Amino acid sequence: MIDRIDHIAIAVENLDSAIDTWINILGCDRSAVTIHEVPSEKVRAAFIPLGQTKIELLEPLGDDGPIAKFLSKNGAGMHHIALATDGVEADAKRVTALGITPLGEPSAGAGGKKIVFLHPRQTSRVLVELVEPKPDHSFIQ
Amino acid sequence: MIDRIDHIAIAVENLDSAIDTWINILGCDRSAVTIHEVPSEKVRAAFIPLGQTKIELLEPLGDDGPIAKFLSKNGAGMHHIALATDGVEADAKRVTALGITPLGEPSAGAGGKKIVFLHPRQTSRVLVELVEPKPDHSFIQ
Repeated sequence: MIDRIDHIAIAVENLDSAIDTWINILGCDRSAVTIHEVPSEKVRAAFIPLGQTKIELLEPLGDDGPIAKFLSKNGAGMHHIALATDGVEADAKRVTALGITPLGEPSAGAGGKKIVFLHPRQTSRVLVELVEPKPDHSFIQ
Repeated sequence: MIDRIDHIAIAVENLDSAIDTWINILGCDRSAVTIHEVPSEKVRAAFIPLGQTKIELLEPLGDDGPIAKFLSKNGAGMHHIALATDGVEADAKRVTALGITPLGEPSAGAGGKKIVFLHPRQTSRVLVELVEPKPDHSFIQ
């Protein structure tokens, strides 16, 4: 069941500058920000908590990952929204039966969280991620 | 103080079709959806609750409002994110002092809610709305 927005993700050219911008907008302290490198996605990500959800800022590592390509095509801006669910696989099946196509099978995202993306052609041209916030360690073995 | 995302807004060509898409993604019932016309903004808006926040779908009324122009330039997609605050005017002053420019003075949005937008040039090219969720009736008189 999908019950909240887990995060909204914004592609940025410079992570440190974008962190400054967003803590200034939100009026929060830099100590609230966590930063992770995800080499498999060629990205450095900052998370800023905001109520039930988070703002995720995505800076490319190198020039050939998905965020580098997005920035090269579009410049900075909204990249995706992630919806929290207790069952990615069940939701992927459910939406498939309704004609919405997951992009591949559920897989392990950052921190072992199970994720799948939906095709933006079928979701008002918004890239949607479904994510199980609780890491499933058996899943990534 | 900004404490949560009030809504994320998506521009769509056809509201009824987009409502079907998003209740299918979220797995919620159509009875959860509320629809409002905002003639001053030349838009018809559907709100779908999702935890602390909402998905807002925006369909243009006519062909010369801001959403019609957005669709003509970009097609469907993410339009803005709205951050809930208990003080739009205080936050507008706070971010101005930090170099982030509000687009005009705080004004009355749909339902008498006090709102202001921030210039996307200074917010990672994401259009940001600050909104006081509680209508201020004195404000709109």
